[in-house]
Amino acid sequence: MVIILKENPEQHQLDNLISWIKDQGVTPHITQGMHQTIMGLVGDTAKIDIDLLCQMDIVEAVKRVQEPFKNANRKFHPLDTVVKVRDAVIGGGKLTVIAGPCSGESEEQIITVARSVKASGATLLRGGAFKPRTSPYAFQGLREEGLKLLLEAKKDTGLPVVTEIMDISQLDLFDEVDVIQVGARNMQNFELLKHLGTTDKPILLKRGLANTYQELLMSAEYVMASGNENVILCERGVRTFETYTRNTLDISAIPALKKLSHLPVIIDPSHAVGNSQFVPPLTYAAAAAGADGLIIEVHNNPACAKCDGMQSLTLETFDKVMKKLRRIEAVMLED
Amino acid sequence: MVIILKENPEQHQLDNLISWIKDQGVTPHITQGMHQTIMGLVGDTAKIDIDLLCQMDIVEAVKRVQEPFKNANRKFHPLDTVVKVRDAVIGGGKLTVIAGPCSGESEEQIITVARSVKASGATLLRGGAFKPRTSPYAFQGLREEGLKLLLEAKKDTGLPVVTEIMDISQLDLFDEVDVIQVGARNMQNFELLKHLGTTDKPILLKRGLANTYQELLMSAEYVMASGNENVILCERGVRTFETYTRNTLDISAIPALKKLSHLPVIIDPSHAVGNSQFVPPLTYAAAAAGADGLIIEVHNNPACAKCDGMQSLTLETFDKVMKKLRRIEAVMLED
Amino acid sequence: MVIILKENPEQHQLDNLISWIKDQGVTPHITQGMHQTIMGLVGDTAKIDIDLLCQMDIVEAVKRVQEPFKNANRKFHPLDTVVKVRDAVIGGGKLTVIAGPCSGESEEQIITVARSVKASGATLLRGGAFKPRTSPYAFQGLREEGLKLLLEAKKDTGLPVVTEIMDISQLDLFDEVDVIQVGARNMQNFELLKHLGTTDKPILLKRGLANTYQELLMSAEYVMASGNENVILCERGVRTFETYTRNTLDISAIPALKKLSHLPVIIDPSHAVGNSQFVPPLTYAAAAAGADGLIIEVHNNPACAKCDGMQSLTLETFDKVMKKLRRIEAVMLED
Amino acid sequence: MVIILKENPEQHQLDNLISWIKDQGVTPHITQGMHQTIMGLVGDTAKIDIDLLCQMDIVEAVKRVQEPFKNANRKFHPLDTVVKVRDAVIGGGKLTVIAGPCSGESEEQIITVARSVKASGATLLRGGAFKPRTSPYAFQGLREEGLKLLLEAKKDTGLPVVTEIMDISQLDLFDEVDVIQVGARNMQNFELLKHLGTTDKPILLKRGLANTYQELLMSAEYVMASGNENVILCERGVRTFETYTRNTLDISAIPALKKLSHLPVIIDPSHAVGNSQFVPPLTYAAAAAGADGLIIEVHNNPACAKCDGMQSLTLETFDKVMKKLRRIEAVMLED
Repeated sequence: MVIILKENPEQHQLDNLISWIKDQGVTPHITQGMHQTIMGLVGDTAKIDIDLLCQMDIVEAVKRVQEPFKNANRKFHPLDTVVKVRDAVIGGGKLTVIAGPCSGESEEQIITVARSVKASGATLLRGGAFKPRTSPYAFQGLREEGLKLLLEAKKDTGLPVVTEIMDISQLDLFDEVDVIQVGARNMQNFELLKHLGTTDKPILLKRGLANTYQELLMSAEYVMASGNENVILCERGVRTFETYTRNTLDISAIPALKKLSHLPVIIDPSHAVGNSQFVPPLTYAAAAAGADGLIIEVHNNPACAKCDGMQSLTLETFDKVMKKLRRIEAVMLED
Repeated sequence: MVIILKENPEQHQLDNLISWIKDQGVTPHITQGMHQTIMGLVGDTAKIDIDLLCQMDIVEAVKRVQEPFKNANRKFHPLDTVVKVRDAVIGGGKLTVIAGPCSGESEEQIITVARSVKASGATLLRGGAFKPRTSPYAFQGLREEGLKLLLEAKKDTGLPVVTEIMDISQLDLFDEVDVIQVGARNMQNFELLKHLGTTDKPILLKRGLANTYQELLMSAEYVMASGNENVILCERGVRTFETYTRNTLDISAIPALKKLSHLPVIIDPSHAVGNSQFVPPLTYAAAAAGADGLIIEVHNNPACAKCDGMQSLTLETFDKVMKKLRRIEAVMLED
Repeated sequence: MVIILKENPEQHQLDNLISWIKDQGVTPHITQGMHQTIMGLVGDTAKIDIDLLCQMDIVEAVKRVQEPFKNANRKFHPLDTVVKVRDAVIGGGKLTVIAGPCSGESEEQIITVARSVKASGATLLRGGAFKPRTSPYAFQGLREEGLKLLLEAKKDTGLPVVTEIMDISQLDLFDEVDVIQVGARNMQNFELLKHLGTTDKPILLKRGLANTYQELLMSAEYVMASGNENVILCERGVRTFETYTRNTLDISAIPALKKLSHLPVIIDPSHAVGNSQFVPPLTYAAAAAGADGLIIEVHNNPACAKCDGMQSLTLETFDKVMKKLRRIEAVMLED
Repeated sequence: MVIILKENPEQHQLDNLISWIKDQGVTPHITQGMHQTIMGLVGDTAKIDIDLLCQMDIVEAVKRVQEPFKNANRKFHPLDTVVKVRDAVIGGGKLTVIAGPCSGESEEQIITVARSVKASGATLLRGGAFKPRTSPYAFQGLREEGLKLLLEAKKDTGLPVVTEIMDISQLDLFDEVDVIQVGARNMQNFELLKHLGTTDKPILLKRGLANTYQELLMSAEYVMASGNENVILCERGVRTFETYTRNTLDISAIPALKKLSHLPVIIDPSHAVGNSQFVPPLTYAAAAAGADGLIIEVHNNPACAKCDGMQSLTLETFDKVMKKLRRIEAVMLED
């Protein structure tokens, strides 16, 4: 951490600052310039509250050198985290595909889709029960009923299931859910994150619409600091000025997050682009950029889906996409 | 609502679409071009699920003409909503100032600040008890204890209080709180919004970091559709590429939101800019642009504040700012 | 084009509007709702000035259905444009790689790099002579001298060359340049675009930092409307709130621009991400997403490059990247 | 400037770096941590090429402490620059209003508008002759003819005139123009900026759609480093995800730019918001936030304006706005 002081600090202010820093267990080193004094802090600065420093009268600016996250930081955990979900694994070099409908609609529908995506090579089943919708007048998911449908499909196919939680109060219903998803809008719902940190279920954490890599990793840190190390990071598009696609998929998030953190990184091309026509190229791109997995919307009849049908692949298209994906994966795994 | 069809739709698809539209109680009017067919829908389209339409095979694009919000829409409620909070009012032409520390720290501190901001002309007291922080290692507020401090200050000064809720489970503690704040990170925490819609307390709803006016109004609609009409909209800066200020205050939100909606619109200059030096000019700008109020951070000793001290005004500066603010208000009220 | 009228337009205003529309050679169709009147325009609306419409008293909003670009529009030119540059081609299914140093520095350097990238499979040579730099104090390129170096390398290797123009006045120096690059900062330098439209050289047009697909295509349209159809579109990252990477590569631009337009689309991963470590994964992603080509910075000694060395690949890395790229290309070309 | 080194740098690399830094006339101070070595540079670092540093093998990151602009920097020129334009002044505490039509259309029109805005209190006349338009098919301004009209209005009213240049080749036509405007799209047209730096005319430099304060000041620095100190900065809205207004006016730019620089800062509310209805509140906000001036579009018949009519004020509205503006100015000038 580097502190830039205002011009001509008074000695007693400087003394106060130095003594405060030492109280944090960190050593300050001072560089005295003609116009500017710079202080380098050496030691474990991850827990220093940067806001506290900024507000001090003699401080002009504070710049972090070390990242403020520890548990999620690759520097302290060089090896890839591999999250095990029953028979499936996420992370560690394999390309894992999670697929399924945006929201469960009927037993027949979810089982048809589940069997089909399993046959095509998906190893986890996704499906929305509680659906975050911008409008209170839009379809909000089948909720408890939707969870039951999803668990029927799990029983039928043996695929572990991933579904979204929207509030702590729903947690009791998630007993048989294998991976709990935290949606983009809840990425900084810190009470929820802390709570999920006390469970032993893998958490699929989606990046918020306008959140930085560091903020995403700090949210993972909330879960991990509460005791749950099984966090899967998911990039699903950020919001920009471009409105032709629903969001802008930030493909660089893959190598960047994998450099910063040891956690697995997966991509959601369906929500990122919002248009099924563009999902296959983004899927291939994610694999080529080194993603640990994908979460893809697939529907047996996209034109009748109760929500987000526009971005769902048909069963046939998904099967074709999986075949090409495996060939790309093979190329990526060569030396 | 206008539907643009793909080229050469098949007749049975067109018939299906028309019959589906009529089932929604809306009348379709068709404009047949050489390359394009356009369908104008006449009637109450607010409750039509635009995603359902988009996913139909023959639909190229759907464009809303009518806004998708009803309760919050000025078209259906031309008069300004005025929210009454004990002796204070928000909306309807008066400039209401909410002030107080970022977070309550001690009884002495909060009462000192409360008395002082009251003397300067603030009519509501703000103070954070539950604090959303990016880092799990940062000060998280005094929580229940913080609420008690705030209520002490209310008892002492008679000022109604505003404080943030972070999770439904905290609601029981908010009995004596006068206005419940929903923070930017929770603007689309729909379960929370629905729940708050069942209370009778005014809700101060902050705009999310990357949310549009329409999304903000749809979140207000969640509260209102659940029965609570007392929503106060708050612009507190959006996230852009510019990092010199913490966020970018969107001053146009004032006239824009007031055109779209009858709800009161207030500005939070402190969180928008994140630097106390820039708070006074933004405060004056908000008043000149027609805001219904301001929510400003004030601290008796900003350099010791446990969080966000950098953006807090001193008691003295706040007093000066209030004097100039009243003169601007007077100019704005002249014919 | 769809025009939404304000409530209760006066008849004479409506008549004026209808007659103005007919004067543009376009037929209006009116849909009369209870609250809203919608007018669908049928015919060639590409040349209607949308601003003129918007400002009319009775017009609430105007929404385009047809894109405002014609020459660049795939609807009117379904087949891919293939740009021929001496022995190289860009577009039409082949993956073309343009490589070379950010800026030419010495004859030895540029020839070393040119021979090496040619051996690795690049078919065009890039190199900056005129360099746009944010600071007037930074190295501005070798300018005329840099052009000469580049042409030496062309003579030596036979590779056609691509380099950036910054002002019309430099055009005389570009006689032997094969492809003229327009940088992101000049994407809406309309006088330059018009001028380049009168030449017969292929134009490599980079997307601006905050420009939409449509604006990029309108800038291509400036060149094409002046008579030059050889435009190559280049995505090189857009500006977002994320600052960890220099820009955010918009990978969806590949399928999106190829859907909207018949022009070839290439990717510049080097400028997009600004960090050589992340260039290989983005390069592979671009190929997998269907790009027609790549423009990559390569340097024989990145640590000594006069500018942008941080994002340049070494000759050895580039060679390895090319090998994997060809394997991905092969997968993409399978059925 | 602070340099953060990679872990465990080799001694000879460190020696090379230190010797390179000393060659720049700057002194390095080293802080050795357990995991990290930090180097503080003391001296004039404004001319150090940050990219050169970043690319060195042992450098992890470089953070500027000192701003990279000198001529535009308030630290070195504490007093406000006041730009004199014949009888008008811009900067130094007075609120100067520049008004006029988006583009000159006829002698009668421009003279009518010029006389009227002068009577209302504008002290400079604006008017577009060369118009940057996204579409090659849209009205491009009357060009030379438009300049003549503007100069007619100058002769008639005595108002100095402001108009936009789009290319160096047009400069000969600007002899009698008083202030040369560089539009947002040309903010980083560095060849143009250098050229304008050799003239003695005040330059009104508009901020680009997605350019930071620092980039704006670096562009001003281009003009100033070439010898022309008369630069006026203009904020005219930045591009964000919000599309309800044309752009998002960054009101904080006023105090921020005035803190960073001594140059005058003016606001263009018309282009920022793109809707005449919202221009008055933004105009008042700009004055209240401390702007040195405004540039406002006014038209005698907005509904017939050849471009941008939607955002132009009528003569009557402008007159009313000026009256209220003067009252706000008076409040701001009190003590």
